[in-house]
Amino acid sequence: MTDLSKRFTANPILHPRDVKPSMEGLVVECLLNPGAFTYGGKTYLLLRVAERPEQSADTVSAIVIDPAAPQGMRILSCKKGDPELDYLSDPRSFTYQGKTYLTTLSHLRLASSDDGVNFTVADKPTLIGEGPLETFGIEDCRVTEVEGTYYLTYTAVSADGYGVGMISTQDWQQFKRHGLIVSPNNKDCAIFPQKIGDSYFALHRPTLGAGLGGNFIWTASSPDLEHWGHHTCIARTRPGKWDSVRLGAGAAPTRTAEGWLEIYHGANEENRYCLGALLLDLNDPTKVIARSEQPIMEPTPTYETDGFFGSVIFTNGVVENGDELTVYYGASDLVVCGATFSIKEILASLH
Amino acid sequence: MTDLSKRFTANPILHPRDVKPSMEGLVVECLLNPGAFTYGGKTYLLLRVAERPEQSADTVSAIVIDPAAPQGMRILSCKKGDPELDYLSDPRSFTYQGKTYLTTLSHLRLASSDDGVNFTVADKPTLIGEGPLETFGIEDCRVTEVEGTYYLTYTAVSADGYGVGMISTQDWQQFKRHGLIVSPNNKDCAIFPQKIGDSYFALHRPTLGAGLGGNFIWTASSPDLEHWGHHTCIARTRPGKWDSVRLGAGAAPTRTAEGWLEIYHGANEENRYCLGALLLDLNDPTKVIARSEQPIMEPTPTYETDGFFGSVIFTNGVVENGDELTVYYGASDLVVCGATFSIKEILASLH
Repeated sequence: MTDLSKRFTANPILHPRDVKPSMEGLVVECLLNPGAFTYGGKTYLLLRVAERPEQSADTVSAIVIDPAAPQGMRILSCKKGDPELDYLSDPRSFTYQGKTYLTTLSHLRLASSDDGVNFTVADKPTLIGEGPLETFGIEDCRVTEVEGTYYLTYTAVSADGYGVGMISTQDWQQFKRHGLIVSPNNKDCAIFPQKIGDSYFALHRPTLGAGLGGNFIWTASSPDLEHWGHHTCIARTRPGKWDSVRLGAGAAPTRTAEGWLEIYHGANEENRYCLGALLLDLNDPTKVIARSEQPIMEPTPTYETDGFFGSVIFTNGVVENGDELTVYYGASDLVVCGATFSIKEILASLH
Repeated sequence: MTDLSKRFTANPILHPRDVKPSMEGLVVECLLNPGAFTYGGKTYLLLRVAERPEQSADTVSAIVIDPAAPQGMRILSCKKGDPELDYLSDPRSFTYQGKTYLTTLSHLRLASSDDGVNFTVADKPTLIGEGPLETFGIEDCRVTEVEGTYYLTYTAVSADGYGVGMISTQDWQQFKRHGLIVSPNNKDCAIFPQKIGDSYFALHRPTLGAGLGGNFIWTASSPDLEHWGHHTCIARTRPGKWDSVRLGAGAAPTRTAEGWLEIYHGANEENRYCLGALLLDLNDPTKVIARSEQPIMEPTPTYETDGFFGSVIFTNGVVENGDELTVYYGASDLVVCGATFSIKEILASLH
């Protein structure tokens, strides 16, 4: 193994305890996989905050997104023993009066920093799920700046499955919703920061069930960032390797002289998530020039190996500064961390 | 049950024996689910033809799409006992030298008719799979005429899964390929025959694995028919009913005074496929006005209940003539049939 990362000595840089719950009666259970970007001279993370209602012995509870409620969400509590309640079939959800509710729900929240290491988390959610396709929350947001506008691509979760939602903003005050840009089941969508030829491009990850295909990385292209076509599979799982079961793009690719550099995650049969690199042709990103044989980063310190879901490092936010690529990542589905890489070193590892 | 269909007395109108194999050494195993359209005063079907190599006791064989071969395809035969061959794990496929091959493969072939009942099938395939996303064939094509051009949306099948491919033509001689317009796994995509407001619309059917969601009908919209966004779920499976497990759109919707009328298929736990109707708002096809409580057509005659896969009626081709809607359909995954409906009667059944 050649771990090319230099982890922040301050890791983890954010814990659930650093985040104020969205409303009374909620607990922040996990911080996950932040998007990252710079704006107005500061570094920002767009955190995924997973909350659940406080537990009590005789009830089960869920967060329900409700535009009519003061905070845009409310708590639904059901008495155990209610004949219309089934909470024993699945620990992650329950059904009440025939409807399914998740026991935890994610929203997106900004955190800002002057130095890229010490972050201050906003007191309230920045974005919560909206409409019928986001009733179970929004997760794992990539942020790409394209021609002065920030495009946020995230996992929109509902009882209808999960697909890729998109929101755009120029000032982080006004947000425009663009609906689901890739149909379910799909996640891990990252938009390239500029047009290539006449088209915009994105990476995405269809999640397939049993049968043909697998959890592979695909590209798509678009004339307007809102409508996508020409879906093409570019990277598949590799039996016997660290990315044998599941792949997914990280943040927007970084343009280098040798090609588009994409840090992606791969998982194996043990659900161990590592990071690797893909190098894509500058003029045709459906062409893979090179791919990491070995991970460039593996879960190693305790905060990456032990947590809510151990042995997971997952990135969807990078900040580029010359040769230095700062990778923000979720560790063990519980805390947020950072590490720096040399772009040259990553490229050299791909030769 | 109220079966509103008037089946052709000539049913089935096409058998596998009516179709010439694509090349020597192949057998036409099944005729399935045709698209339908009118062109130059004739009625056309675009049949899905499923072929397999002739069997022999000591080999297993597959059709391999190969642009370098004279007919665009060739037969791969492997001796049973070859240590690089595994043919016992799955009757529908085998693996040889680490690659998977299907034992049957579908192409699309035109059949033409002056009366809409007696069809003459072309001697050769009209369209076969092309490129890495169609190596396992192309299936179940919908044909929609939009502004003088025919748009063909079909299931593109490969080892990477299956998604919706699109081909357009104006003269049925020259064809333009538009790649995958909806990412995998997805099928049953039908484009509306005209713009609604500023956008084109389509129906499609994501196939989800275990977990959230199901095999529901979605809509999408597009500025150019090639790039799609605003994916929205409009019709879900209904527990306990005839469409409890799986739904999918049929052909392009028919415009009526009351709304867009869509004949769709639904299947239950017994994989019994029936047809029903959806009525969608003329100005906003994401709004469902009405839906069949009971099927409008159920597999009943022997040719629908007994075949390659029994109790299946599946339509993706309709031809409209005033109040009469002729529905062409695949029966029991083996033969092609037709039936007529009164649009008024279908609408009345939805009230």
